[in-house]
Amino acid sequence: MQKLEPITDFVEITPSAEIAATAHGWRAKCLQRLLRLDMPVPRTVALPATTIQAIAAGRSLDCKGVLECFGENPLVSVRPSPQNPEWGGPSTVLNIGMNAARHAVLVKTHGQAAADALYLRFVQGYAVHVARLDPDMFEIAEPSAQALRDALRAYRDEMDEPFPEDPARQLAEVLRSMSRAWAGTSARLLRQSKGAPEEAALGLVVQEMAQGLGQGISGSGVIQFIDPVTGLEQVTGRFLGQAQSSDIAEKREDALYLTRDPRGPSLEELAPELFASLARQGAACRAKLREEMQLEFTINDSHLAVIDAVRVPRSSRAGLRIAVDLANDGIITREEALLRVEPRALSELLHPQVDPRGTRDVIGRGIAASPGAATGRIVFTSAAAQASASRGEPCILVRRETAPEDIRGMHSAVGVLTERGGMTSHAAVIGRGLGLPCVVGASDLSLDVKALVLLSKSGRKLVEGDLITIDGTTGQVLAGEVEMLPPALDDAFRMLLSWADDVRDIGIRANADTPADAQTARNFEAQGIGLCRTEHMFFEEARLVAMREMIFADTPDDRATALARLLPMQRDDFVQLFEIMQGLPVCIRLFDPPLHEFLPHSRDGLRELAEALDRPLSEVTRRAEALTEFNPMLGMRGVRLGIVLPEIYDMQAQAIFEAVVEVARRGGSIVPEIMIPLVSASREVELVKTRIDAVAAKVRTATRAEFDFKLGVMVETPRAALRAGEIAQHAAFLSFGTNDLTQMTYGLSRDDAGRFMNTYVQQGVYPEDPFHILDVDGVGELLLIGAERGRQTRANLTLSICGEHGGNPESIAFCRKAGFDYVSCSSYRVPLARLAAAHLALLDKDRKKTT
Amino acid sequence: MQKLEPITDFVEITPSAEIAATAHGWRAKCLQRLLRLDMPVPRTVALPATTIQAIAAGRSLDCKGVLECFGENPLVSVRPSPQNPEWGGPSTVLNIGMNAARHAVLVKTHGQAAADALYLRFVQGYAVHVARLDPDMFEIAEPSAQALRDALRAYRDEMDEPFPEDPARQLAEVLRSMSRAWAGTSARLLRQSKGAPEEAALGLVVQEMAQGLGQGISGSGVIQFIDPVTGLEQVTGRFLGQAQSSDIAEKREDALYLTRDPRGPSLEELAPELFASLARQGAACRAKLREEMQLEFTINDSHLAVIDAVRVPRSSRAGLRIAVDLANDGIITREEALLRVEPRALSELLHPQVDPRGTRDVIGRGIAASPGAATGRIVFTSAAAQASASRGEPCILVRRETAPEDIRGMHSAVGVLTERGGMTSHAAVIGRGLGLPCVVGASDLSLDVKALVLLSKSGRKLVEGDLITIDGTTGQVLAGEVEMLPPALDDAFRMLLSWADDVRDIGIRANADTPADAQTARNFEAQGIGLCRTEHMFFEEARLVAMREMIFADTPDDRATALARLLPMQRDDFVQLFEIMQGLPVCIRLFDPPLHEFLPHSRDGLRELAEALDRPLSEVTRRAEALTEFNPMLGMRGVRLGIVLPEIYDMQAQAIFEAVVEVARRGGSIVPEIMIPLVSASREVELVKTRIDAVAAKVRTATRAEFDFKLGVMVETPRAALRAGEIAQHAAFLSFGTNDLTQMTYGLSRDDAGRFMNTYVQQGVYPEDPFHILDVDGVGELLLIGAERGRQTRANLTLSICGEHGGNPESIAFCRKAGFDYVSCSSYRVPLARLAAAHLALLDKDRKKTT
Repeated sequence: MQKLEPITDFVEITPSAEIAATAHGWRAKCLQRLLRLDMPVPRTVALPATTIQAIAAGRSLDCKGVLECFGENPLVSVRPSPQNPEWGGPSTVLNIGMNAARHAVLVKTHGQAAADALYLRFVQGYAVHVARLDPDMFEIAEPSAQALRDALRAYRDEMDEPFPEDPARQLAEVLRSMSRAWAGTSARLLRQSKGAPEEAALGLVVQEMAQGLGQGISGSGVIQFIDPVTGLEQVTGRFLGQAQSSDIAEKREDALYLTRDPRGPSLEELAPELFASLARQGAACRAKLREEMQLEFTINDSHLAVIDAVRVPRSSRAGLRIAVDLANDGIITREEALLRVEPRALSELLHPQVDPRGTRDVIGRGIAASPGAATGRIVFTSAAAQASASRGEPCILVRRETAPEDIRGMHSAVGVLTERGGMTSHAAVIGRGLGLPCVVGASDLSLDVKALVLLSKSGRKLVEGDLITIDGTTGQVLAGEVEMLPPALDDAFRMLLSWADDVRDIGIRANADTPADAQTARNFEAQGIGLCRTEHMFFEEARLVAMREMIFADTPDDRATALARLLPMQRDDFVQLFEIMQGLPVCIRLFDPPLHEFLPHSRDGLRELAEALDRPLSEVTRRAEALTEFNPMLGMRGVRLGIVLPEIYDMQAQAIFEAVVEVARRGGSIVPEIMIPLVSASREVELVKTRIDAVAAKVRTATRAEFDFKLGVMVETPRAALRAGEIAQHAAFLSFGTNDLTQMTYGLSRDDAGRFMNTYVQQGVYPEDPFHILDVDGVGELLLIGAERGRQTRANLTLSICGEHGGNPESIAFCRKAGFDYVSCSSYRVPLARLAAAHLALLDKDRKKTT
Repeated sequence: MQKLEPITDFVEITPSAEIAATAHGWRAKCLQRLLRLDMPVPRTVALPATTIQAIAAGRSLDCKGVLECFGENPLVSVRPSPQNPEWGGPSTVLNIGMNAARHAVLVKTHGQAAADALYLRFVQGYAVHVARLDPDMFEIAEPSAQALRDALRAYRDEMDEPFPEDPARQLAEVLRSMSRAWAGTSARLLRQSKGAPEEAALGLVVQEMAQGLGQGISGSGVIQFIDPVTGLEQVTGRFLGQAQSSDIAEKREDALYLTRDPRGPSLEELAPELFASLARQGAACRAKLREEMQLEFTINDSHLAVIDAVRVPRSSRAGLRIAVDLANDGIITREEALLRVEPRALSELLHPQVDPRGTRDVIGRGIAASPGAATGRIVFTSAAAQASASRGEPCILVRRETAPEDIRGMHSAVGVLTERGGMTSHAAVIGRGLGLPCVVGASDLSLDVKALVLLSKSGRKLVEGDLITIDGTTGQVLAGEVEMLPPALDDAFRMLLSWADDVRDIGIRANADTPADAQTARNFEAQGIGLCRTEHMFFEEARLVAMREMIFADTPDDRATALARLLPMQRDDFVQLFEIMQGLPVCIRLFDPPLHEFLPHSRDGLRELAEALDRPLSEVTRRAEALTEFNPMLGMRGVRLGIVLPEIYDMQAQAIFEAVVEVARRGGSIVPEIMIPLVSASREVELVKTRIDAVAAKVRTATRAEFDFKLGVMVETPRAALRAGEIAQHAAFLSFGTNDLTQMTYGLSRDDAGRFMNTYVQQGVYPEDPFHILDVDGVGELLLIGAERGRQTRANLTLSICGEHGGNPESIAFCRKAGFDYVSCSSYRVPLARLAAAHLALLDKDRKKTT
């Protein structure tokens, strides 16, 4: 084989050199930008990715030529420069060029100890990272002349040759090692997990060492100008005297504060000019690189050198604040600020968070079902939760799983933990709706319902009254109390979302069932209520009794009597809701659940009910049994109840209309939207519409008031989607209930799917949990069919989705593309949805610009 | 108003007259046909429908002109002649023209008594049917001269005028009365219930009276040449001497037998020539009118007159026999014979029927869920049913509703009666599969489970051991034993179906789970098994234990051990099945139901299970509870079990393949089709296919035998239909399980739908119960989408349906049109399906001919 010439494809970084992030990597490009800002960056040579690939393939570089760029006998460092800083890369190697001769010089200039330590450090690093020798052999506690000799001997013994003296050889070996590490499997998998493509390439930068070991003020430091947790302006970082950059991470007693600090001396006091210069560099970076940067610097004999700059790592809340501040300072556009904030990151900001800097005593793990963290005393029943709340003691409701009768307990708790269930279990859905931190399916923990003990896998026993913290953002269950960060609904948050509203082109409403929910929706600036479930209104004690009387009524008259007692309460619900939502649309779903949900399940409960209704227990039991269903999801509920027991919908419609009139009398205005659930045939809509129109006419006559309303359909069955053309004849709007629609399209109960969903997602049977991410292929096609056929019948048909999927960026993208008018999601997802919708509009604009 | 001329639009019926059934009605046309056969039909005039409509509107007819057709002083009858004999019409009026003068003549010719009786009869009929007087006033026990005078006086008193003497006036009044009766509401509703269109019109025929009152052999009779119950050749009918046709229905001691009979004198003996002539007329009718006709005749002075002929009313079995015999005699084509038999009529013939001629002591009513009747002693448990069967005593299993564990009890019973459930309840589905008469949802009867008493609405108590009969054809529950007709799987039945097979163009397979089912399928000449559900195989006691061990296994190894015990039993199942079905395809659905169906539900059952498994009761209870599901229909079943616990499908596949090899060794041949249930994503099919291919390879290696098989998918979820294109990449066939697909498309559990389905169908919310008649609009569209996308991927994809709908003519029509290869239905529906498919092919051929 012909010997190939050494590669000479490298370039010194100067303001005018041809440096590209794609060819030379982000670090090379960043250093060039710093140079263009006139920063004191040490001389640097960039090796492009093509060169590194060639080296990995066995070619050699003209290392002498590289070193010649740095003058005589230089010491240099090599750092990775991949195309994207997130992709990692091999560790930096410092002090290449160190050898016996250079050591002798250093002894003279910096003294024996410093020279020994520096040489030893290089030998260690080279032996381990380049020659790949056993790290244990080079682990030495204290640098000394003897330790240096031992290390050099150990190297020779292992390698059968002395430690390389030739700087060009040293550099060549370092480059070869780094290029191969990049090509290795573990590095490849690691960077691919961070989103790097298969062909991701590595550039390297070779930089003259800025020692920080000289006379006067010398040392290395790192500085940033914001608090990485809050994003507020604040200088943070550290400075170590007589140290190289690799030392900064060390915890040393003699580190200096950067700014004046009562606790000790600071760089700002000791070298005010240098500090001011650093601050100027930081400001320049921010203005020109349009980002908050962290600078790595050395001071050598009172001369500042900026050796590297990276984007400040930051929390979600800091990221938002930085983006807004940059936009407000005119450094980036509002659009760019919007795109810099990941919608999903917003969820974290709406709730208290466990402080990432604190320690965690994890006793179990579950599914992070509703974000935010909460600390409270364990209670095992809803009654205990209410008692605890009335004592003013925060509590965590711990249940095997929750049911509708736990609603009041959930309202009373600061967090919910369940042993069973998934992302769409009752606890999870209600928890997200209430903005209540929630961990579900914590199968690590086992709940002994009889003994009232929560047992951890490791055998720790927790009883009622014990303090725990649940972290609904990570799914962790922690013992005791932990440090928390408060929620961040600050000015920056509100400002960013107002910008989002300026650009987005699809409506965002909230699912809100109660006045409290509605207030939250308003706080988060939802454009109305897209789904108000009315059944929760009937679980309050006084109402439950009337509901049960209604259920046990023998004649339509008796039923009407029981419902008449519910009417004023139901009307008050709507008056409150409408007052809060004034001027915005409110879409009310008529009664949906099967009646048996309102009956007690225990023998004792049935006995109490029999007493309350003054009927024999045997009859109550028999009738309760007769109401049970094999598959309640597919049973007698929704519009089926509305057809068979039409008095219920009559009462609800009357309550809605009377509330509208009442609110109008008080000067408010509302156009209610009435939504019929579980429709599977257009005739159902026709029948309900006829009765509701009649109720409206009756209320108009009785109150002598005029009002408008809209009647629409919740599309939850595949058949309703297929027959949307026919249904739209009687409906002003269609709102797709993607929870139930997903259940029916898959033939999959979300309450029962937990048992195998993990296996399914792990084996790739389903790419995602379809209750979590909208199934575009199946359910999505039904949405498109329904939308198209509906609009064909009625061009101005309002289209929306109101399932749990509503707040997901993927669902919003789908609905936006399909021409839907709005999405509706739980109140606490509204901010995320507003931002996600803005992203989509901006990306679309970009796409249109480029094509 | 200008007086209009009397209508003269009437025509005497002669062989060459222009008579059309559409204009003059079927009777006029039929009489013309008889005339063309040279039959002695009395002179007859046809009044077309237009004339009758004009009369109803107030116009008058030239009645004199009509009467002139019959010579001087005729007596005539008027009979209805609607376009279709099924549509009914006003009662016949005889002896029009009777008056004092005519009476005097008759006294001379026939004697005083006969003349009085005849005149009295006319006055009575006229007063009641034409003048609409109170029938009570004209109710006279014995005709006499006094009675006649009384009647004439009563008429005059009521009408303020004497009884009309003018024959033309009499006729005019009769026609006016008949025309108005036809236009009346009750007549209109009655004929519309029989399928008559809104515009159905009435013609009338006026016929010269043939008195049957003369000298010598005189009288009236009715004769037909087949037994109307069996359809076999046999002269039946009666003859009354000295009687008019209206007398024939009377029960008179002096009626003659028609043919020689040891019990008394017969027409055949008394007037052999007349009898022979009648027989010739009958044969001529059959040959030329191409139908078995009933002749009404009179004999006057030994002269025969045929005054009317109608199609013999007949039972379903007679109808089939007649059609086959006519075809075999070359009178009609086989195609016509096929079209003359209504497919639904066949179901009756497959089972014993309650003899319609017997008396019925009805104690309750339910839904006729599985046709046929059965008598047996009441048992209330499956165990009692088995005990009864082992004693050789037929029993009826009476349950609130049945569950899978009742299967053996159902096998042991001769019929099943349930208090709850609908057409698609467990009892109904299994009943139809087993061909077991079944009445469900008998809410008339209440079952006291504890006291073991069945209580009828009228308060009758039935206990275990009491004899009852259930009629699964009508839904009646009868006390005691009743007369039965045996099933009619005779030569005619088989012949007709073989003709059906010659013309039909879609395959018919049977759903068969057991060797007994398979034998039935073979008997009914199904073209294979389209759905063999394997889960029933696991309910036998020995297997149930192994199943439960499998369910409670802690490791895949333990699971495999339990399954290994099931393997030989499962293999034997298939060996038996394959031997019976030799040469035909057998499509086996892999295990489908949720595992909890195999666990006991009672505390006692769980305790026994704990003992059997040697595990603590608390653990068994806890694990059984953990397996319960909120919506089992949408839970962990079907392919989901196959993915999560793949050992089950592995075992089943091994059993199938080993059975194929075994049957091949014995000289048989079978290509099994393996069907995966409840698929919702193509990856499920891919994963199962990989494992089944591996099992096949293993069995091929172990047995050193070659065999083929097909793998396909049961399309039961809407998503599987939507993604059929992708799924077909891995599937050789798609079979639509329309039961589950309907449940999911509607979001409607068939087990829970009973509560409101009646209301829904009554109010027209659903035009039909979609579990009974395939919902073409919704579920049907998914079938079409699935079929089209599947075939796009794989042009030779086999398509079929295998739900309960499979045997319905409507479903067969749908599938045929959609290009499906076959339908599969319960064995007892196979004959119906074969005939229905033939009808469709023939009707299509007709349609193509006419276009």
